[in-house]
Amino acid sequence: MGMKSLITGAPGARLHTAAIPEPRQGEVLVRVKITAICGTDIHIFNWNKWAAGIGIKPGNILGHECVAEVVKLGEGVESLALGDRVCIETHIPCEDCSLCKNGNMHICENKRIFSLHTDGCFAEYAVVPAVCARKVPDFIPDDLASILEPLGVGVHAAQVGNVQGKRVVVLGAGPIGLFSACASLALGAHSVTISDVKNTRLEVASMCGDMHIWNPLEISASAMLGSRSSAPEVIIETTGSNQAIAETLPYLREKGKVAMVGLYSGDVSLNLSRDVIYKEATVEGVHGRLMWDTWDVMENLLLEKKLNVRPAITHEFALEDYEEGFRIASSGEGTKVLLKP
Amino acid sequence: MGMKSLITGAPGARLHTAAIPEPRQGEVLVRVKITAICGTDIHIFNWNKWAAGIGIKPGNILGHECVAEVVKLGEGVESLALGDRVCIETHIPCEDCSLCKNGNMHICENKRIFSLHTDGCFAEYAVVPAVCARKVPDFIPDDLASILEPLGVGVHAAQVGNVQGKRVVVLGAGPIGLFSACASLALGAHSVTISDVKNTRLEVASMCGDMHIWNPLEISASAMLGSRSSAPEVIIETTGSNQAIAETLPYLREKGKVAMVGLYSGDVSLNLSRDVIYKEATVEGVHGRLMWDTWDVMENLLLEKKLNVRPAITHEFALEDYEEGFRIASSGEGTKVLLKP
Amino acid sequence: MGMKSLITGAPGARLHTAAIPEPRQGEVLVRVKITAICGTDIHIFNWNKWAAGIGIKPGNILGHECVAEVVKLGEGVESLALGDRVCIETHIPCEDCSLCKNGNMHICENKRIFSLHTDGCFAEYAVVPAVCARKVPDFIPDDLASILEPLGVGVHAAQVGNVQGKRVVVLGAGPIGLFSACASLALGAHSVTISDVKNTRLEVASMCGDMHIWNPLEISASAMLGSRSSAPEVIIETTGSNQAIAETLPYLREKGKVAMVGLYSGDVSLNLSRDVIYKEATVEGVHGRLMWDTWDVMENLLLEKKLNVRPAITHEFALEDYEEGFRIASSGEGTKVLLKP
Amino acid sequence: MGMKSLITGAPGARLHTAAIPEPRQGEVLVRVKITAICGTDIHIFNWNKWAAGIGIKPGNILGHECVAEVVKLGEGVESLALGDRVCIETHIPCEDCSLCKNGNMHICENKRIFSLHTDGCFAEYAVVPAVCARKVPDFIPDDLASILEPLGVGVHAAQVGNVQGKRVVVLGAGPIGLFSACASLALGAHSVTISDVKNTRLEVASMCGDMHIWNPLEISASAMLGSRSSAPEVIIETTGSNQAIAETLPYLREKGKVAMVGLYSGDVSLNLSRDVIYKEATVEGVHGRLMWDTWDVMENLLLEKKLNVRPAITHEFALEDYEEGFRIASSGEGTKVLLKP
Repeated sequence: MGMKSLITGAPGARLHTAAIPEPRQGEVLVRVKITAICGTDIHIFNWNKWAAGIGIKPGNILGHECVAEVVKLGEGVESLALGDRVCIETHIPCEDCSLCKNGNMHICENKRIFSLHTDGCFAEYAVVPAVCARKVPDFIPDDLASILEPLGVGVHAAQVGNVQGKRVVVLGAGPIGLFSACASLALGAHSVTISDVKNTRLEVASMCGDMHIWNPLEISASAMLGSRSSAPEVIIETTGSNQAIAETLPYLREKGKVAMVGLYSGDVSLNLSRDVIYKEATVEGVHGRLMWDTWDVMENLLLEKKLNVRPAITHEFALEDYEEGFRIASSGEGTKVLLKP
Repeated sequence: MGMKSLITGAPGARLHTAAIPEPRQGEVLVRVKITAICGTDIHIFNWNKWAAGIGIKPGNILGHECVAEVVKLGEGVESLALGDRVCIETHIPCEDCSLCKNGNMHICENKRIFSLHTDGCFAEYAVVPAVCARKVPDFIPDDLASILEPLGVGVHAAQVGNVQGKRVVVLGAGPIGLFSACASLALGAHSVTISDVKNTRLEVASMCGDMHIWNPLEISASAMLGSRSSAPEVIIETTGSNQAIAETLPYLREKGKVAMVGLYSGDVSLNLSRDVIYKEATVEGVHGRLMWDTWDVMENLLLEKKLNVRPAITHEFALEDYEEGFRIASSGEGTKVLLKP
Repeated sequence: MGMKSLITGAPGARLHTAAIPEPRQGEVLVRVKITAICGTDIHIFNWNKWAAGIGIKPGNILGHECVAEVVKLGEGVESLALGDRVCIETHIPCEDCSLCKNGNMHICENKRIFSLHTDGCFAEYAVVPAVCARKVPDFIPDDLASILEPLGVGVHAAQVGNVQGKRVVVLGAGPIGLFSACASLALGAHSVTISDVKNTRLEVASMCGDMHIWNPLEISASAMLGSRSSAPEVIIETTGSNQAIAETLPYLREKGKVAMVGLYSGDVSLNLSRDVIYKEATVEGVHGRLMWDTWDVMENLLLEKKLNVRPAITHEFALEDYEEGFRIASSGEGTKVLLKP
Repeated sequence: MGMKSLITGAPGARLHTAAIPEPRQGEVLVRVKITAICGTDIHIFNWNKWAAGIGIKPGNILGHECVAEVVKLGEGVESLALGDRVCIETHIPCEDCSLCKNGNMHICENKRIFSLHTDGCFAEYAVVPAVCARKVPDFIPDDLASILEPLGVGVHAAQVGNVQGKRVVVLGAGPIGLFSACASLALGAHSVTISDVKNTRLEVASMCGDMHIWNPLEISASAMLGSRSSAPEVIIETTGSNQAIAETLPYLREKGKVAMVGLYSGDVSLNLSRDVIYKEATVEGVHGRLMWDTWDVMENLLLEKKLNVRPAITHEFALEDYEEGFRIASSGEGTKVLLKP
């Protein structure tokens, strides 16, 4: 018996009927209900330099964001039961290094990435390490459950930003930027401004909460942030654009903080003397989500209806219509695009 | 020319016509617009043991919460102008001790208290040290301006509690408890529960935001907080009751935090081994407001309409009707009671 | 074939020849080289109220501090090898609760204690959960390795105290107090004062580093700490005596910190208004050691010869001479007493 | 009556006899005892691009590091008395902006710099704002007192680095680097490595304490820092060299911290994705010294003999011999060079 799956074309992707895999020791087999397209998937679809360089094996199944149901337990798995509804923490920790042993599994020095170093979940079934199968509380519906993983990045960024009572500027209104902005509102920022060069994305953002909208193609950073009463105390950078951060950093308040989430394709050039040293500002890297504190906080915020992220889900397709899904996600026409196997 | 003022009767209070005072070097004279009754005023009105012991001089003018207008500048005052609308930071710092010099003026080791060590503001005019006259931004109306000082205590308590993403329980729904709960909501608590033994106060609280209400006379601490999913991560204690904190502390989560605001009349007896040491919990004292970070944060939150505290103002009287005002404030029948000179 | 062991007499203790136990899944068998007597062992020896109440089974083997060699691996143990030299982390975590999952295994909500909920190590052999068998680096000699567990409590207390550049007072010069003082020196306290009512203990302390010695029976707290230049910024409390902390707390500086380590036998009565709230002081519970950050830090400090704790090892006996060992450890005549099986 | 002074030649410098200035309101006149040459003075001496661009007035008196005696009080000065021995905090705060009002006077948004925006102290007398004249405790001898200002930068950097129990690498063994390394030892780093391309400076460093010495021209960063047991947890960067930080940052541990002190002449190019984001590292700017917590901590450390910085004072000249002093300070032949008026 086979299963439908979407495998890398390197470049592109194609549908494939694969054998349903068997979970090994410490793994579970899940039946995938809904998946979502991440920026990483788009890089692999486009087979850019990064994707070509990380050693993905030919024919690898794409995708890591999903909600799924546990249908088979590998040997030794006691933390899960058949029928459990789960989503996937993408970072597979070794559980043995000093980072794992000190509460930092999410940046494990030996970590593997689900869907890069393993097959992914754009398929009817997937095998998942039990340690990475996070049970989803009942009050979270399937569509929201499918995007908890990227939502967690936003919550983590807002936690690192320590946004409580602060004026926050989020650079980028793609999914991670949007989720960072929503989380900043939920975690007590006194105001949130979100930027993007695409107005479609800003429109989605404005549906998610009481945020200030900023298109830097239309209003300069100086006009938007240039007075002391508008200067950000926290910047959450999600664009990965050197230009975006270089143009915004001069307006950061003294003692301000930058939570850096977006990955840059090469070296980044910044005026650190003027923008960081004289100001005694802090730049802090953010990667993934705390395992598992961020998940706990995120679920609590959802329970109390403090994260209004459903407008971020702009499109939904059958897995077969993946080409249209990838087109919309790549173009910025949509924000979060779901695929149903 | 005289001015109407309310002076201590030790016990009680009485109206008195005093001379309008002159501001000395570093002081300003203000015309008082609205004042508010604080718990401290009630202690002095009732002339309890604490009040009798702090050395208030006979005939001292009561009151420290107000909004007022600067009408005369003492010598050397450059930070204020005639016509400025101000409220009063009650803590008068020496500006010379190591606490003042390191950002902790609010707990200055030589600090004096406006209205205890000086005349207060339950009068038509008052003299205020310029350093303690805080300009009020235009967007804050007079009635809210008159309660910024106690609101600041609540904001400070929520800051110390680091409530962002946390389950918060506030003990006491008097003004400080209520303001702490409002500030916890504004600063990103994922849920807030507020307790009081008086349902009138809980009703006011429920008008101020989406809080859970708890009357410990009706529901036990165990029933309210006894499961892991209801156990508080942060407790803000504003009652000054040993019993209240002793009965709640067992339910604090491991690694949890207690922000202690309410003053106790004597020693406090707690099971620190079980409730603090084994849990690695933190108990932190909160006094007054940061000068001036708390004020900045509070004004920003008000600007963005994140502090819905107007329902806390339950009564308003002319200064002449002070007896009724004190009765209502003492009884818990009202929350915040204003007096207009 | 049997092994020599010291079992509880409830009260007292007696030597017993037991069968050498078998390690089960996830456990290892170790051959014990050196053990050390802890205050907990003394409580059980004396069979005080606490000991009688925690459900130790009759005939349980005493002791948890030791250095040992792995001689047999239970099923599934991959993190250790035969011949590994280890000491024992006493806290056995469930590895599944939210505390374990968020870097706080040492206060696991389901934790069991080695030697209370299991047999201990005052014996020729012991069975240890693999997760609790900490490999000892080669540069640490056996005698120091046998006391790493309590030394870790001291390091943890100094970490919590954030002693860097601070004036530190450690209450109690028993093993935990002494180790806290040594760790405070190593972690950059600008000065350390250690107190005890027994001069023998203070003499040992003075051999461990450049500390100020204080016997409160000879010099009052007021004389010792009563000026602003002598007032502690950090208090590490290890006595478990209400009187000790109540008499010292009034001298804590504003914004100071108390790291509470010593366990109290009942409720503790303190003047929290004066000593914590008005001062905005912090009281933080300390229990055990971080798993495993504290161990990493401690080993690094030992590698760089920053912890001079050998003078703390005042006595060494054969296991057979346990009565004399317990007498000396109980009386305060010695500090750390070793027993060799 | 005139006074000897060293004024800018733009480029170079020359001796000049100036009128002894009068202190105005809030200022004091001091008689200078010993001064020390700072890197800033060298920039002005060399009249590099930075110096030419900051608007120093022709004939300005150079120098800001010194120990001096108060000989005349301007109007309104109450915090100082004639005969007080002081050194100078270079940052002149406005005392009115929100940074000044919240404990961050050292990065005041309107701050002026003593010796850039005012005349300096390479002279027999100097006028100093009273707020910047820091009394020197008696136990600190004059030569050490003259270098407290730059020593404070090192203490501040180590405080920001939070070096307690950490493996610290300091880039640069000029005065600021050397002082940062000494302060890191004093504040509890478990090990300190200091780098410089000049062995003369490393030799001075090795006289100041038990530090590891590293000349990157002789040993590569990879060889020095490339194993996990040698990878720094904290980097204190004092060189202002893009190359130095770019070559070291790859070896920073996950969750590590960079305290950035050295000023860069232009934009800095770094691989932030690999070195900061994936690692969740923190980069924090350090400027000047906390006013006044750093001074308090520094004096306490000196009192307890924890800062062994006298070897840093390598040369001492009469003010007349300034050319030789500047030559030695510029070349790196010496570390700290004193000039006596």
